[in-house]
Amino acid sequence: MTKPSIPRGTRDFGPEVVRKRQYIFNTIRNVFELYGFQPLETPAMENIETLMGKYGEEGDKLIFKILNNGLDNKDKEEKTRAALEKVLQGKTTSDLTERALKYDLTIPFARYVAMNHNQLTFPFKRYQIQPVWRADNPQRGRYREFTQCDADVVGSRSLLNEVELVNIYHTVFMDLGLKGYELRINSRKILTALAERCGGADQMINITIAIDKLDKIGLEKVKEELVVRGLKNDQIDIIEQYLKIDGSNEEKLKAIADLLTSTDAAAEGIAELRTVTETVNLKELIIDFTLARGLNYYTGIIFEAKAPPQVKMGSIGGGGRYDDLTGLFGVPNIPGVGISFGVDRIYDVLEEMNHFPPDVQVGTQVLLFNLGEAESKAAYKLMQELRLAGIRSELFHENTKFDKQFKYAEKKGIPYAIIIGSQELAAGEAVIKDLRKGTQLKVTMADAACYVFG
Amino acid sequence: MTKPSIPRGTRDFGPEVVRKRQYIFNTIRNVFELYGFQPLETPAMENIETLMGKYGEEGDKLIFKILNNGLDNKDKEEKTRAALEKVLQGKTTSDLTERALKYDLTIPFARYVAMNHNQLTFPFKRYQIQPVWRADNPQRGRYREFTQCDADVVGSRSLLNEVELVNIYHTVFMDLGLKGYELRINSRKILTALAERCGGADQMINITIAIDKLDKIGLEKVKEELVVRGLKNDQIDIIEQYLKIDGSNEEKLKAIADLLTSTDAAAEGIAELRTVTETVNLKELIIDFTLARGLNYYTGIIFEAKAPPQVKMGSIGGGGRYDDLTGLFGVPNIPGVGISFGVDRIYDVLEEMNHFPPDVQVGTQVLLFNLGEAESKAAYKLMQELRLAGIRSELFHENTKFDKQFKYAEKKGIPYAIIIGSQELAAGEAVIKDLRKGTQLKVTMADAACYVFG
Repeated sequence: MTKPSIPRGTRDFGPEVVRKRQYIFNTIRNVFELYGFQPLETPAMENIETLMGKYGEEGDKLIFKILNNGLDNKDKEEKTRAALEKVLQGKTTSDLTERALKYDLTIPFARYVAMNHNQLTFPFKRYQIQPVWRADNPQRGRYREFTQCDADVVGSRSLLNEVELVNIYHTVFMDLGLKGYELRINSRKILTALAERCGGADQMINITIAIDKLDKIGLEKVKEELVVRGLKNDQIDIIEQYLKIDGSNEEKLKAIADLLTSTDAAAEGIAELRTVTETVNLKELIIDFTLARGLNYYTGIIFEAKAPPQVKMGSIGGGGRYDDLTGLFGVPNIPGVGISFGVDRIYDVLEEMNHFPPDVQVGTQVLLFNLGEAESKAAYKLMQELRLAGIRSELFHENTKFDKQFKYAEKKGIPYAIIIGSQELAAGEAVIKDLRKGTQLKVTMADAACYVFG
Repeated sequence: MTKPSIPRGTRDFGPEVVRKRQYIFNTIRNVFELYGFQPLETPAMENIETLMGKYGEEGDKLIFKILNNGLDNKDKEEKTRAALEKVLQGKTTSDLTERALKYDLTIPFARYVAMNHNQLTFPFKRYQIQPVWRADNPQRGRYREFTQCDADVVGSRSLLNEVELVNIYHTVFMDLGLKGYELRINSRKILTALAERCGGADQMINITIAIDKLDKIGLEKVKEELVVRGLKNDQIDIIEQYLKIDGSNEEKLKAIADLLTSTDAAAEGIAELRTVTETVNLKELIIDFTLARGLNYYTGIIFEAKAPPQVKMGSIGGGGRYDDLTGLFGVPNIPGVGISFGVDRIYDVLEEMNHFPPDVQVGTQVLLFNLGEAESKAAYKLMQELRLAGIRSELFHENTKFDKQFKYAEKKGIPYAIIIGSQELAAGEAVIKDLRKGTQLKVTMADAACYVFG
């Protein structure tokens, strides 16, 4: 028998980790709901045509496909052979695989909105906290199964939504105790205007790709990359001026207006950034013209959340506005804006900052000792009262040595023990031990529940 | 473009459904934790050898297998051809698929315990609420992706665990308002003793299979089946007497002691049932000797929970004791006992009995109307106070007609509207409308938060 194991890039979450993850999920979920977002859950599996072609050629390869049922059975040899032949001839893979595991939450959300747009009330504000799967090469912090945590508003062009999303980020990070986080904001329209200033919108992609690397490679290498990508020196000068814009949000908005020619894109981008930053007015919200968010489908405001600087973690969330969520599924004209929390990284940040609340780390609160038939009967009765009072309690499963029962409490990190021996039973009393402080007191059984948790 | 759809047997859960499901999950989770059970989560994917051969030949076919990465790419033609050739020759499927979606929570739990048994503290009490996947033919109430909800204690032979699990069932069903539910209990040892009484333990399977059908086909057909399965008339007479045992739990225990010869199995089974039923002493806990729970791995006490009789739903949970959780993974001697809640059926029962609490059905609690720039600014300020007070609130996304904003609240089932028009703004007031009662009152803005939810 081979030793059991789990697939590379996947994880078991034991009790302590689940409790900490649940704390993060519950904090985020609570804020989403306070802001009027409604929960949605879509299946793990989607039809393969829903997913393929949505994430680029590289993405397609990273989608986990599910083998059609029966193809691994010997008795379906002919069917299997025929399916494979088609795959090998490059005709179709659908006889081999018709379903796949979802790769993100956005495409299934788009599919859901496209399927249900006649019944939904717009603006539709949904949040979704579910696992996704990617056949990426696993490495530190990158898993093949991980949880995404998204909130989107679709069917509204109002900047109120951007304001709300900024406040959601702020409330969640404050609730989690992440003082010092930063929320960077930019607009894709500013990047469009920069490209226009540098000789045309066709430079947009080249400029964006290069700028996106600034954090990693620094200004000089970005300039080299711009040269390689065919930009001329005077254009690169403008980009350098652009990247060096600094100061308060107000100063940055003034500087960018001076640098860019007054095109529609520039005017709109500046107005959007001004509205959002002035309405929210948070010191954590920082205009950052170097923020580009890759080559994706964003068209307006874009966000990126960064962990407090004392932990070197980088991005812990991001998002932005898009023009067309469901066009790919035949339903045009549904614009939206959304954000995402990087839950695995937030977990690591809280761990590193030692910021998980102590009570998240306690499972069972009280262990009642099992010291004989009559004693454990009294203990069981008391335990049911504790549970009614909301106190998580266990009675040790068998009458055995004190030591063994203490050890169990210690290993499980249970903070209190209640001991009812024959003496206590006769006197109608119980000994309550605070196992962390090492103190103990004797109370009447009737009072025990009050003593444990006030 | 084909109309988007989801795979057969899978479901999207919209906001109302997610909230109701979360209510059930949270109720169960809360009780599990009060009883000292700790959460565990395992990946959706397992290595295929972890799952195959654990659920019988039929089960193997119903496992969703994941295609190895790259096999659907044309450029890996040779690799794909070789993989397929091996499958077709019946050699191995591992070149085609190495991973599969989990089929239940028990085998991944066993795999987890086997992998971590040196670090775990026994008895290990875990609960797990996660989706599983089965390539079954979908039908009413049967899905290809559904959530299981299990609690198990492993590493303990104490009957205290059975008592605890009975109390968990009772507490959960009371918390959910399912008065009239029944928890049937039997012991596999009683069935063993019956087989012994009928001429030998080798009859156990034949008797169990037939008895298991009693609910569906009735006594006469069960007797016919026993004939077909080779049982003699005098044996069938004993089984008939067995199936007809009736009365209180006490009377049943007396009758079964009279009917069975006093073997070890009979004595142990009767003692177990007596201990558990007398310790718990609940009218809902009913000894039912016709309960068999199929041909699975149970060895001691078995349970089945039934919905209140006014809803024709049958089983809403089940479980039992087993001798050996992890032997299949090379770690012997870990006995345990576990129960499971049938969440989809419990959902249907609560729906049919109209038993979901009203507040589970409310998403956003307050819609603030958007009636102009200054007005909406005041409304936003008030909204942030409401949210701080824990009230789920939204500001309508744009300044538009009253009607449209009312309609949005109505469609979304939002119970309160707060209206701040130019008059109210000037007076520092707000109108609060109770949209369900059709009443309204005017309050100062400072008091609005208190008025909405007391």
